[in-house]
Amino acid sequence: METNLSKMIPLASISSEKSKPVCIFGTGDFGRSLGCKMLQCGYSVVFGSRNPQASSLLPKGAEVLSHRDAAQKASIIILAIHRDHYEFLTGLTDVLEGKVLVDVSNNLKINQYPESNAEFLAKLIPKAEVVKAFNTVSAWALQSGTLDASRQVFVCGNDHKSKQMVVDIVRALGLTPLDQGTLLTSKEVENYPLQLFPMWRLPVYICTGLTIFIFIYCLITEVIHSYVVDREDNSFLIAISIPNRVFPIVSLILLALVYLPGIIASTVQLYRGTKYSRFPDWLDQWMLCRKQLGLVALAYAFLHVLYTLVIPIRYYVKWWASNYVISQIKSNHTYPFDTSYAWRGESYLALGILGFFFYLLLGITSLPSVSNMVNWREFRFVQSKLGYLTLILCTAHTLIYGGERFIYNTYFYKWYLPPAFVLSLIVPCIVLVLKFIFIMPCLDRTITRIRQGWERNSRYPKQSDKENGKPAV
Amino acid sequence: METNLSKMIPLASISSEKSKPVCIFGTGDFGRSLGCKMLQCGYSVVFGSRNPQASSLLPKGAEVLSHRDAAQKASIIILAIHRDHYEFLTGLTDVLEGKVLVDVSNNLKINQYPESNAEFLAKLIPKAEVVKAFNTVSAWALQSGTLDASRQVFVCGNDHKSKQMVVDIVRALGLTPLDQGTLLTSKEVENYPLQLFPMWRLPVYICTGLTIFIFIYCLITEVIHSYVVDREDNSFLIAISIPNRVFPIVSLILLALVYLPGIIASTVQLYRGTKYSRFPDWLDQWMLCRKQLGLVALAYAFLHVLYTLVIPIRYYVKWWASNYVISQIKSNHTYPFDTSYAWRGESYLALGILGFFFYLLLGITSLPSVSNMVNWREFRFVQSKLGYLTLILCTAHTLIYGGERFIYNTYFYKWYLPPAFVLSLIVPCIVLVLKFIFIMPCLDRTITRIRQGWERNSRYPKQSDKENGKPAV
Amino acid sequence: METNLSKMIPLASISSEKSKPVCIFGTGDFGRSLGCKMLQCGYSVVFGSRNPQASSLLPKGAEVLSHRDAAQKASIIILAIHRDHYEFLTGLTDVLEGKVLVDVSNNLKINQYPESNAEFLAKLIPKAEVVKAFNTVSAWALQSGTLDASRQVFVCGNDHKSKQMVVDIVRALGLTPLDQGTLLTSKEVENYPLQLFPMWRLPVYICTGLTIFIFIYCLITEVIHSYVVDREDNSFLIAISIPNRVFPIVSLILLALVYLPGIIASTVQLYRGTKYSRFPDWLDQWMLCRKQLGLVALAYAFLHVLYTLVIPIRYYVKWWASNYVISQIKSNHTYPFDTSYAWRGESYLALGILGFFFYLLLGITSLPSVSNMVNWREFRFVQSKLGYLTLILCTAHTLIYGGERFIYNTYFYKWYLPPAFVLSLIVPCIVLVLKFIFIMPCLDRTITRIRQGWERNSRYPKQSDKENGKPAV
Repeated sequence: METNLSKMIPLASISSEKSKPVCIFGTGDFGRSLGCKMLQCGYSVVFGSRNPQASSLLPKGAEVLSHRDAAQKASIIILAIHRDHYEFLTGLTDVLEGKVLVDVSNNLKINQYPESNAEFLAKLIPKAEVVKAFNTVSAWALQSGTLDASRQVFVCGNDHKSKQMVVDIVRALGLTPLDQGTLLTSKEVENYPLQLFPMWRLPVYICTGLTIFIFIYCLITEVIHSYVVDREDNSFLIAISIPNRVFPIVSLILLALVYLPGIIASTVQLYRGTKYSRFPDWLDQWMLCRKQLGLVALAYAFLHVLYTLVIPIRYYVKWWASNYVISQIKSNHTYPFDTSYAWRGESYLALGILGFFFYLLLGITSLPSVSNMVNWREFRFVQSKLGYLTLILCTAHTLIYGGERFIYNTYFYKWYLPPAFVLSLIVPCIVLVLKFIFIMPCLDRTITRIRQGWERNSRYPKQSDKENGKPAV
Repeated sequence: METNLSKMIPLASISSEKSKPVCIFGTGDFGRSLGCKMLQCGYSVVFGSRNPQASSLLPKGAEVLSHRDAAQKASIIILAIHRDHYEFLTGLTDVLEGKVLVDVSNNLKINQYPESNAEFLAKLIPKAEVVKAFNTVSAWALQSGTLDASRQVFVCGNDHKSKQMVVDIVRALGLTPLDQGTLLTSKEVENYPLQLFPMWRLPVYICTGLTIFIFIYCLITEVIHSYVVDREDNSFLIAISIPNRVFPIVSLILLALVYLPGIIASTVQLYRGTKYSRFPDWLDQWMLCRKQLGLVALAYAFLHVLYTLVIPIRYYVKWWASNYVISQIKSNHTYPFDTSYAWRGESYLALGILGFFFYLLLGITSLPSVSNMVNWREFRFVQSKLGYLTLILCTAHTLIYGGERFIYNTYFYKWYLPPAFVLSLIVPCIVLVLKFIFIMPCLDRTITRIRQGWERNSRYPKQSDKENGKPAV
Repeated sequence: METNLSKMIPLASISSEKSKPVCIFGTGDFGRSLGCKMLQCGYSVVFGSRNPQASSLLPKGAEVLSHRDAAQKASIIILAIHRDHYEFLTGLTDVLEGKVLVDVSNNLKINQYPESNAEFLAKLIPKAEVVKAFNTVSAWALQSGTLDASRQVFVCGNDHKSKQMVVDIVRALGLTPLDQGTLLTSKEVENYPLQLFPMWRLPVYICTGLTIFIFIYCLITEVIHSYVVDREDNSFLIAISIPNRVFPIVSLILLALVYLPGIIASTVQLYRGTKYSRFPDWLDQWMLCRKQLGLVALAYAFLHVLYTLVIPIRYYVKWWASNYVISQIKSNHTYPFDTSYAWRGESYLALGILGFFFYLLLGITSLPSVSNMVNWREFRFVQSKLGYLTLILCTAHTLIYGGERFIYNTYFYKWYLPPAFVLSLIVPCIVLVLKFIFIMPCLDRTITRIRQGWERNSRYPKQSDKENGKPAV
């Protein structure tokens, strides 16, 4: 709720501080918003503009001068102008010498230019100190005070002192500066606001692929087969029944895929007898997107829960239930209560609920603000112990479901295809069996030693390592 | 979990630092808690008290002196006393000269005094530098170390250097300083801890109004009508059936109201041909509380989901279902399975589930810690693309529900009033139709250009704007 | 998403800054990762190693020297080595004089050594300034850039200036420094990463105890009793029915236990007539873990909701329902619709849903990032007002459920044991009755005055207190 506060703050014109003003080149949207915010936080601001007299929308309290005059007054100059217009700065080289130039620009496309805007600027005015900053902040957010998206400001630059001056401004504006190093990183910084969930790409691709495959598989075995063989129109199953088969299957496979790379990494380390050699790239990639994979799997599990809970409201199910009663009456034969069937049905549901519950716990602990409150031991406890518990519960849920179906229903193989849920059990079972092997004392001890820095073929005695640093595989 | 750590830290008496002590006037709750916390963080603290010898509850390691003696020892004096007692400070004017006075006071009511406490203090002791800080932090939180509510400390003051000294203390205590500018903003800062969800007020009012209206509407058409016309007592519908009609209807209207101001803003910009003129105040206000509107709508959608999922547990529904079967048997007539009806019923449920799912995703991304991790492009993608997808799904859900009801049930107009869900479709349909018009290439191109700073009636060539700064309307 | 950014940043070799390099002793996992990160952020790094020429895995851009040479080059030396190897540092006493030694070590067990590693180091090299830091950060997190768990770095040390130097490094690496005071606190800091949810221990113990007790209680009254008396095998109830009795009962008791300590505290304060005397330790402990108690209760409530919603899918329930219809037909007797029963059943469900909804709201506001956005007044409003509303709704939900059961079902006392839900009502009812007494004007006024600092037997006139600082009991 702090947001609306800063918005209502009157412009600070009577500031008692004597510090040199900050100069902003460019009176566009971003320049004005930034200037306004800086004035509110007690800075004195001078705008550099081509038409100093024509800038009616500028915040009160700010001076507007020509570029040259404005630059002379300040030691920090923020360039709120497009890269395309940087050329005109060459005419000001003399006044810009020794000043801190803050490049706030963004491009329209990732890697639009061969070099980053900030590096381009540094080449253009080699005698000024260029600092890249503020490019992740939006003018609208600065204006409205609602910093919903990122408060993080990436700062990079070659000169430590200049960078520190910019970092101080960032902090004074209530934003979070993150030092990214030298100008070499400016390309990354400039690409950042143009990215669209890069870490989610791989999980979403895997998930989409699996979804389509399982969907078609179920469509064939449940709709097309019955249409071709029995001439029955079951197409309405596409709305709920088939998604409710696809979601849990894909979810379980994805959950297993979260734990598979850890198993593979252990195998690799065990085989190599050291942890000091890099994993193959695909494994690194996979391990870094485990969190996202898990969250996609959780989303699917959530959908599975909702789709399951609406079952009794469905017309199809209600019609079937009343028909079932009617047929019992007509045949004058009531089915007796079957305790073992009840046990199976109920424990199948209970396992599913508990699995989903722990799944959700995992999801909640991966919220940034929650995971930031726990230490590494707690984080590993949750992600590893609770994670495997979830995987076991969900696999058991599927196994009992399968058992029930196999025995009591006529889900025989259609066109020689096994029921879809059988597919979902392959990866989880492999992961669980391997994990079970790896936690056997002999192997576990070796892996732990390897992770603590021990090497099988060590050439010289290792210097001690930090326990804390073992990977959370 | 870090919280309990700081609590258990022993008082640091043997601090090797030679820095000047910090003085605290007032040995009340807050003064003591702050002093204790500062001692823990390595500061040396001296209390100023009227009865230096009578203060038995003070933290160990702190000195207690008379006000005058204490003030002389320090360069920063924190005033943990009521505004009403500030007068006595005039007697200390000579020792307070040039010192930093930190005003931590709060009032009991918003705008209790014409001027803020800090400004009053600055007038009283004009030769001291007054800084407002710490008023948002509670004594209890400092004592217990459980900083559940705000870690944010708003700091304002006219002198940059004094402010920086206070900011350093705030940071050393593990709190987050937020520079709010000069003392002019102190009134806002003092009012802040007295506010009660100011951003939520408008959404809650709108929501309450709509809820009451729809509730009465449903009461009339479903309970009162049947009581007056058919002499049937359906009053028990008030518990679940009617809320389950009110919640989805209000939720859908509120969701549409989240996207309506964006549409209006586009229209205004398109009409004016520029984005450089302010929106009317009501539109600004509306746009700033869109997030809260959306969250209220999500809460209602969540209630709708729960109310819907308990349907099969309800006595009324169970009784009705068994009666339905019995009547079929008695009349010896079973209803055949209707595929088209199944399609409608199932897709209606599926759309609802998917709508709710994306709704929830929107809600999760509006959590501060999540939205802080995404960049503007990602935030806009989620809030705009996913938002409209949610609106489309929920509207389709309602439309199919409506279609089903109209055809298969006897929900004809009662007292010439259309069924309530018809009302819920008005705003969403308007929003979707307008949005559809605005994304047509010709209009979309113009709007994009306007948002990038282009003006239809520009007097002189615009200086370039930043792409990044376009509003997330 | 910022995480992957920092990972991809190239090593900054051409840094223009002239600042003294930072030295890292130890080329193990942690030393290397930290060095790499520091290089990325523009620091120049020199490693001290026993085998300077054998360190092939070190990050590019870093120098590797002998310990002595490396230490001489820097003013800050980070010791990424085990405590067991600290002894060799005594040989370097002359070069370490006046330098800042950063102890990053952790132990394998809590309180493994009588004194903390940092204090041990300070004794070993008394002429150096020891600062404890970085022990909560994992090498893997530094390497991969995915700082999922704690970004918080606890810093403690006796010398303010040395500490500040380390704090600056921490901040430059994009981590959050938290000043914990002098080296006296280093033991706490070292124990922190070894803790496993210390605040959750008490709530989990209470919850586990209650769960086991209620589970056995229900097992006796519902399974064993019917088996012994009626020879009926109801064991399948263990899967869903009994958990669905245990979860709500324990949840309600836990929720009441969240509010009981506040009531007790009020009573104590009222009895003593002052707030300036410490509560007994058990009460303090209890009050500090209220949030965790509440969250455990919420988890159980969530499980209760899921277990309830699957009711209509259960085989047992479906079988019973169809049998019910069949028996009605066979006896040719249909039960008429009972409005008062409908009212009870529906309002019982509605109260439960609303209770759960507010419960969830409470849970969401206790997320760190959300509670950090609200001020104390808002936090207290939510936690106190909404909390009691939740308690009232949930208690009413149970009462109506009880009423319904008592009247319509044959749940008579088995073996003289009352139904389990009766047990769940004891604590909530006590809390609600006491709270009701305490909010009566006469008592409420006294409590408020006490919390504002008033004392019944005050010896001398109190100095004014801060309103803001009243505890959120």
